[in-house]
Amino acid sequence: MSARQMKLGAFLMATGHHVAAWRHPQVPADAGLDFQHYRHLAQVAEAGCFDTLFLADSVAAATGDSASQMARSDHFEPLTLLSALSVVTERIGLISTVTTSYNEPYHVARQFASLDHLSGGRAGWNLVTSDAAAEAGNFGRDEHIGHAERYSRAREFHQVVTGLWDSWSADAFVRDKASGQYYDPAGRRELNHVGDHFKVKGPLNVARSPQGRPVVVQAGSSEAGRALAARTADVIFTAQPSLTAAQAFYADLKNRAATFGRSADELKIMPGVFVVVGETQALAQAKFEAFQDLVQPEVGVALLGRMLGNFDLSGYPLDGPLPELPLTDSGQRSRQQLLSELAEREHLNLAQLGRRIAGGRGHFSLIGTAAQIADQLQLWFQNGAADGFNVLVPHLPGGLEDFARQVVPELQRRGLFRTHYTGTTLREHLGLPEINGR
Amino acid sequence: MSARQMKLGAFLMATGHHVAAWRHPQVPADAGLDFQHYRHLAQVAEAGCFDTLFLADSVAAATGDSASQMARSDHFEPLTLLSALSVVTERIGLISTVTTSYNEPYHVARQFASLDHLSGGRAGWNLVTSDAAAEAGNFGRDEHIGHAERYSRAREFHQVVTGLWDSWSADAFVRDKASGQYYDPAGRRELNHVGDHFKVKGPLNVARSPQGRPVVVQAGSSEAGRALAARTADVIFTAQPSLTAAQAFYADLKNRAATFGRSADELKIMPGVFVVVGETQALAQAKFEAFQDLVQPEVGVALLGRMLGNFDLSGYPLDGPLPELPLTDSGQRSRQQLLSELAEREHLNLAQLGRRIAGGRGHFSLIGTAAQIADQLQLWFQNGAADGFNVLVPHLPGGLEDFARQVVPELQRRGLFRTHYTGTTLREHLGLPEINGR
Ligand SMILES: Cc1cc2nc3c(=O)[nH]c(=O)nc-3n(C[C@H](O)[C@H](O)[C@H](O)COP(=O)(O)O)c2cc1C
Ligand SMILES: Cc1cc2nc3c(=O)[nH]c(=O)nc-3n(C[C@H](O)[C@H](O)[C@H](O)COP(=O)(O)O)c2cc1C
Repeated sequence: MSARQMKLGAFLMATGHHVAAWRHPQVPADAGLDFQHYRHLAQVAEAGCFDTLFLADSVAAATGDSASQMARSDHFEPLTLLSALSVVTERIGLISTVTTSYNEPYHVARQFASLDHLSGGRAGWNLVTSDAAAEAGNFGRDEHIGHAERYSRAREFHQVVTGLWDSWSADAFVRDKASGQYYDPAGRRELNHVGDHFKVKGPLNVARSPQGRPVVVQAGSSEAGRALAARTADVIFTAQPSLTAAQAFYADLKNRAATFGRSADELKIMPGVFVVVGETQALAQAKFEAFQDLVQPEVGVALLGRMLGNFDLSGYPLDGPLPELPLTDSGQRSRQQLLSELAEREHLNLAQLGRRIAGGRGHFSLIGTAAQIADQLQLWFQNGAADGFNVLVPHLPGGLEDFARQVVPELQRRGLFRTHYTGTTLREHLGLPEINGR
Repeated sequence: MSARQMKLGAFLMATGHHVAAWRHPQVPADAGLDFQHYRHLAQVAEAGCFDTLFLADSVAAATGDSASQMARSDHFEPLTLLSALSVVTERIGLISTVTTSYNEPYHVARQFASLDHLSGGRAGWNLVTSDAAAEAGNFGRDEHIGHAERYSRAREFHQVVTGLWDSWSADAFVRDKASGQYYDPAGRRELNHVGDHFKVKGPLNVARSPQGRPVVVQAGSSEAGRALAARTADVIFTAQPSLTAAQAFYADLKNRAATFGRSADELKIMPGVFVVVGETQALAQAKFEAFQDLVQPEVGVALLGRMLGNFDLSGYPLDGPLPELPLTDSGQRSRQQLLSELAEREHLNLAQLGRRIAGGRGHFSLIGTAAQIADQLQLWFQNGAADGFNVLVPHLPGGLEDFARQVVPELQRRGLFRTHYTGTTLREHLGLPEINGR
């Protein structure tokens, strides 16, 4: 099977992507801190031949009026969780989000290198600059770092991390018992990085990891975000509301990559897709509505405020219109525009708009049968909109089980997705070039 | 069995505590990055009813002339490793060293809380202020933070971390599906810490962990180190060369604890003990000598320089005396004194002194039969020198297997050590008070 096949990531957000998922009778409300829950999810995804698990993150508790918001941030710290999951899985990639805005590159380089060793080459880092301004308060600051500075820091952070990953050549550690030579000094590279944001000597205190460099994912969509991703990312995770928008984004990013001398294949674009599967279209819709009916208006509105750029909308009437909001630098400009257009077009009040985004949160949404869903994924995949998808489901574990057992086989029948793993590392699954560690 | 019993920690340093362990034919030289190796060690220790595993750490690669030094720092990052080990163990405690000098308290609080959830209440943090000056260079500094400032930072760091662990009461997360109430606001405590070193808002984005507060271990032995430990530590790890020194240290720390209103039982003192077990005394000695014979003189001297406070001794003749060294603030003053006295008393040249510390590294050393070793441990335990021991073995896995299978049964026969676990959390194993999370 040499035809191009799509990549799939399983986005695991504790109870699921739908903001009210935790209230659903089939969902364990304490899933975020239940290791057996995650073990099951990982094994379902691996049985479904997914390329990777994908964990979002934030280094602050959810804020906002509604107590319910906390349901989205009461979960394991992702690197400890993925390390534990590495033991109960064999092939699937393990990607965690870690922000460059409130971390030190040495720790981040080291933890991902360690996870890469633990997992035999399955680690990936989703580099974000943080969308939650609340994080600043946990790291000595009154205000979120500004957008431009976040990205300038991110760029340098990425340089330092990859430089540290290259500290040792693949054959540096000879560990020769007879002579007592542990490593060959020719394979040791001190970094001696000095930049605007960081000064890091190196080398890393971990031997070169199986992938050489763990996979780097990015999810920014501003101008600065795209520029960084085109230059440095292996994978882009993005929220695209429609086929045309996705095509434009895809073409833009592949073109930008080319200007950095990168081939189109070196950069995989994986939009998020929110999926609800049913035996019939009507059953899928009913399944979805059951979650919608659990959305508390204040919770939907709080989520909306967060998506629009960390606004507190709790003072506005639920049955009133979306208020005029100043543009923020939280990278949500296009989303603001999109949502205010939507509200106007469909005459949605604040509560209705909150309810509207409670499931997909701005990602492309598919509610239907396995065949209908496969049709759409195929359409995007074969028409320059995606190299694969990050699959977001309303609830866990149910939604992932549905996708793995119904949609995956349909994609496999069409030759669009692997029926078994052929490689062992995440780079191999994704078809990314090997990194030469000599 | 209600008599007082000793606590045991298994100190796992990749290939073992002996600096030349990796060269030994029975030792896997790449053990530091072999998860199956650690899985085996953890399971051996758990079968031996050890209270805990214990991982040392440093956030810099070993430096020094000798390539061999790197053997001691080529290993997994400890929190990722312990997270993975939590999955393949059920009862044993999981303690990792993390420095307060080059970290942010929010990350540290969160990772240990997450490990505590993953492991069902088995996490412990060995709070150190870093003895390796090389760490500074990986975190934007030219010089190591000074001793006094390290401890003032450590004190505040501990306050912030424990404050964050207390962010949520044990019953805060009601997760009531019917009403949609995820948590009870009365159980949420924002920290709003503002101090000399940190400003941290909180709360933590993890529910209260099973132990409430993971166990805190400390290992400083300077005046500042003792003061901090007496006030805040649950366990003290210490290097004591003799029974009288250990008794003095034990009495001092228990007295200091009392001045902070703490009972003697709230602070467990566990000196390190370097152990080589053999069927006979002569066989044990021969086993030890096999490691000694693998010590390269430059490697022993490099280790010596590190132990004396990060000195580069490579310029001094191997057959010359230990040079006069300035007192440093790396907290090694008493060790400097001890070692220069030893060199003088026994007329050891530099290479011989390096060889002398290559195994035990300043810890109390026992080389003999299981009964002889048990005699000494009993003596310390019953004479005000120790509440238990951190067991350091020359090589892994062999040395740990020897201890677990020969010394542990001997201690059990004497009623000095448990024959099975009675609790499930590390606090329960150690007999530490429960932390009230209401
Ligand atoms: C699909 C997607 C997923 C994201 N996931 C996270 C996340 O888990 N944590 C986070 O802090 N930011 C996340 N972000 C935020 C971005 O990485 C970035 O910090 C923010 O969007 C601002 O960047 P921009 O202006 O380039 O869009 C995500 C963004 C997108 C589009
Ligand atoms: C038994 C023992 C074990 C230690 N383990 C570590 C370690 O793993 N990593 C580290 O950075 N420092 C370690 N230290 C160093 C101390 O925590 C402390 O940073 C250093 O000794 C200076 O403190 P002091 O002046 O109070 O002794 C250890 C010290 C002792 C006595």
